[in-house]
Amino acid sequence: MEIDIQFPDIKPLNVKRQSKIISMGVGLPKRVVTNQEIIEKYNIIATDRAVKFSIGISERRWISSDESLEGLMAEAVRQCLSKAEIGIEQVDRVIYTKLLGDYQIPALSVALLKELGTTVGIPAFDIASACSGFMHAMDLAVRSIASGDEYVLVIGGGTSSAGIQKWNKPNPKTIFLYGDGITAMLLGRSDTKHFISSYIFTNPIFYNIAYIPYGTSTLRDGMKEIDYNMFDMRIDNGNLIMESSVEHAKVVCEKLLMDAGLTLDDIDFFVTSDQSTVIWEAQLKALNIPKEKSISCFHKYGNTVASMSPLNLYELIETGRLKRGNIVMMHGHGAGASSGGFIFKY
Amino acid sequence: MEIDIQFPDIKPLNVKRQSKIISMGVGLPKRVVTNQEIIEKYNIIATDRAVKFSIGISERRWISSDESLEGLMAEAVRQCLSKAEIGIEQVDRVIYTKLLGDYQIPALSVALLKELGTTVGIPAFDIASACSGFMHAMDLAVRSIASGDEYVLVIGGGTSSAGIQKWNKPNPKTIFLYGDGITAMLLGRSDTKHFISSYIFTNPIFYNIAYIPYGTSTLRDGMKEIDYNMFDMRIDNGNLIMESSVEHAKVVCEKLLMDAGLTLDDIDFFVTSDQSTVIWEAQLKALNIPKEKSISCFHKYGNTVASMSPLNLYELIETGRLKRGNIVMMHGHGAGASSGGFIFKY
Repeated sequence: MEIDIQFPDIKPLNVKRQSKIISMGVGLPKRVVTNQEIIEKYNIIATDRAVKFSIGISERRWISSDESLEGLMAEAVRQCLSKAEIGIEQVDRVIYTKLLGDYQIPALSVALLKELGTTVGIPAFDIASACSGFMHAMDLAVRSIASGDEYVLVIGGGTSSAGIQKWNKPNPKTIFLYGDGITAMLLGRSDTKHFISSYIFTNPIFYNIAYIPYGTSTLRDGMKEIDYNMFDMRIDNGNLIMESSVEHAKVVCEKLLMDAGLTLDDIDFFVTSDQSTVIWEAQLKALNIPKEKSISCFHKYGNTVASMSPLNLYELIETGRLKRGNIVMMHGHGAGASSGGFIFKY
Repeated sequence: MEIDIQFPDIKPLNVKRQSKIISMGVGLPKRVVTNQEIIEKYNIIATDRAVKFSIGISERRWISSDESLEGLMAEAVRQCLSKAEIGIEQVDRVIYTKLLGDYQIPALSVALLKELGTTVGIPAFDIASACSGFMHAMDLAVRSIASGDEYVLVIGGGTSSAGIQKWNKPNPKTIFLYGDGITAMLLGRSDTKHFISSYIFTNPIFYNIAYIPYGTSTLRDGMKEIDYNMFDMRIDNGNLIMESSVEHAKVVCEKLLMDAGLTLDDIDFFVTSDQSTVIWEAQLKALNIPKEKSISCFHKYGNTVASMSPLNLYELIETGRLKRGNIVMMHGHGAGASSGGFIFKY
């Protein structure tokens, strides 16, 4: 693959006031949807076995009518705050990396505050950067704590199925791919250095390879009727997504190790955005990282967009594999094309 | 007006590595649309005189079919970079505060990089926070420079008329209100302190008072046909917007002055988001700031959302009124409800 892009140099984090990950939480819809259910509901010519084999997914969560995006966000945040034993009013900033919300404006992070019933007007905004959004948000959290904040909440993921579930003629290429889920992370001050290196880049040449048409492009096309497909992530060239995820992972890995002065042997765990089991395995292979040092929840949650990478981190923590003091390399790769990551001590 | 919200304490900017505004630029559509043109095109029962009297607007810019949002963004950025005599490849981060774009994903800031033809993969993302978005973005720029960046580009505004111009039955309450326009600001390192105080808050109680329905709410309503109204900012209670803008301006002003250890007499210029001439005048009156110390471009550009406050700052600079060394209090108030601002030395 030819990449005509010059990747920016990595700049050291110039930070005196250090931060660390305090706690994490998740908000998952209660409803588990199997491949077989989708095959039957949408009358798709496929088998559970073929779907598992081709992309690696067994099931995913889809939102029900008695659940809401704000509700899942609030659940994930409540878990974070409860583990950290602090109240929402102690948080200085809320950053949500959004895919779709009920409204375009205001920010969903403000809807979350309303859902939590907080009466403290915490600064809150949404950012948009698809699967790599959590990396941008974590980077901003580290920089905000470095310059005065005590606690920052970062939230990622969404309910892609809000559009998918309304489809009459779903796209058989993507219907199995997406799941709903939210991950929240509370970052706070630390006396010692945890965030060692941070690196993010975009690749404007790949701007059009993956996109959600929902926007004023629908006006330009003179569309008259609601086409639920417009909520669907369009992937015109799946191989390019796969190749760029792998190539971009190599770039991020190399830059981070160089800045940190570490080698891959120093990394205890590698966490990334696993848009499919195949993409996860391809990244591991390209970076020469054994599976024992990584994790993928794609088989049970699917592509949860900005939530994938943090959801894998959450799973490592909850299963007791990741321990305080371990060194983690965390990546996020996605539409934009935007990629990034960190080396941090958990 | 009763505000049941507790405004967060202002936290001092804990910054060693200082930043300042290097340069600004604007991207405005070439087409000037008068009130009379709108009255005739949409057959609205109104007069130019009545529109001017009630909201203060004479004309606004609307995008033409040979212009694009990315094109306006690129124009504003080129002006910034040219004045600063640097290339886009020297920029470490691009933050666009978005209203609507052609696509939901990827970020429009990446589309801008593509439009500029840059081959350096600069980190870029969009944030969403309506009229106060530029305040969030500037705050993040200051914190990013404090922690290692050299230059950060902040861009705000949009092309609200993309939806409005497709309307067959426009909302007579809002059709005169919105204009298209982009403002860009380049922030860079400084040896001396320019950003004295920063303060942002949200008011979740007002989450629903102003919103753009365009989002999955359209699915929930079971909408079958494209209703161009969904691109329109819904304002259910205009008085509440007006009152909250004034009340929130008082809060931001008080917190900033307290943190900076200054009084209003020390402020040379006050710049704010002027959602209408009436709102601008009401803010000045409430804060006891004479008109000579402020500016409003609303009469000629209308409500350009995140671009309003920086557009007024740009106008002060271009007309030679604002000089290096002057002290500015800059505000942004908007849907969310989200408000914030700065005291800085230009």
